[in-house]
Amino acid sequence: MTSTITAQDLTPEAFAPFGEVLDASGTAEKFINQGRCARHHDRAKLDFTDGQAGISLFKSELAEMPYRLELLERHPLGSQAFIPMSQSRFLVTVAPDAGGVPGAVQAFIARAGQGVNLHRNVWHGVLCPLDGAGLYAVVDRIGAGSNLEEHWFDAPMTVTD
Amino acid sequence: MTSTITAQDLTPEAFAPFGEVLDASGTAEKFINQGRCARHHDRAKLDFTDGQAGISLFKSELAEMPYRLELLERHPLGSQAFIPMSQSRFLVTVAPDAGGVPGAVQAFIARAGQGVNLHRNVWHGVLCPLDGAGLYAVVDRIGAGSNLEEHWFDAPMTVTD
Repeated sequence: MTSTITAQDLTPEAFAPFGEVLDASGTAEKFINQGRCARHHDRAKLDFTDGQAGISLFKSELAEMPYRLELLERHPLGSQAFIPMSQSRFLVTVAPDAGGVPGAVQAFIARAGQGVNLHRNVWHGVLCPLDGAGLYAVVDRIGAGSNLEEHWFDAPMTVTD
Repeated sequence: MTSTITAQDLTPEAFAPFGEVLDASGTAEKFINQGRCARHHDRAKLDFTDGQAGISLFKSELAEMPYRLELLERHPLGSQAFIPMSQSRFLVTVAPDAGGVPGAVQAFIARAGQGVNLHRNVWHGVLCPLDGAGLYAVVDRIGAGSNLEEHWFDAPMTVTD
């Protein structure tokens, strides 16, 4: 039997165990450019064991709901932020660690205007844009060495919205 | 008399003296996620004298063309990347340094799907979204100390497209 996970709205509180929501909600720390621009300051915990932060561009095919989740991965050496470059939604699947493998999977749908920063070594699914351009800026670790661990599930799960 | 500057298309070659264009053009360094996603790897030269990279969100009012350019600024302690979170255009004004003040100003219009990374200490105008959500992720230096120098022109310039 395929287990089914219902995706939740992405909120900072619900996502806190896994990382930060990157959006312009709440009160800005300051206003710049003669008051024309709000700066929501330093919203992501960037965390790299070595190497340094870099900016890459990801261009992905769109995914469809219900989504068939077969795989989670994690990056032991650094955090990873996904910033959508269109006003569009994407599916974020994550899990706590349970002795070296993913524990109970949770799913979130980021709405237009939201990105995420995944903390270092958090289990997460691959990039799943649901609409829009499929174009993302990714801020993650640039450095040598293996920074990818994958876990394939014995039985795929179904994620619904 | 007000001097007039005509904005050019934003290309990596024309922008090279000032920074990098962040887009998914050219050949991706690798394909991930079972071939569904192209990774254009490490596209920005992040450069901080101290402190560290952080991600902030800017939410700006839109600007209008022709644009009245009164001010350039620079950040002596770090590079600054602007990543639009909508498929939209923005105006980028920059200038080489000429003995501590801006030299000849150049203007570029970033098209949908393009961001920029400004090298450390490059003179540039404030964020000028021309359409879209006015929402940007900004990757710049998080740290103590003064990191802003402004130059107000005696006579404003007009930037046209």
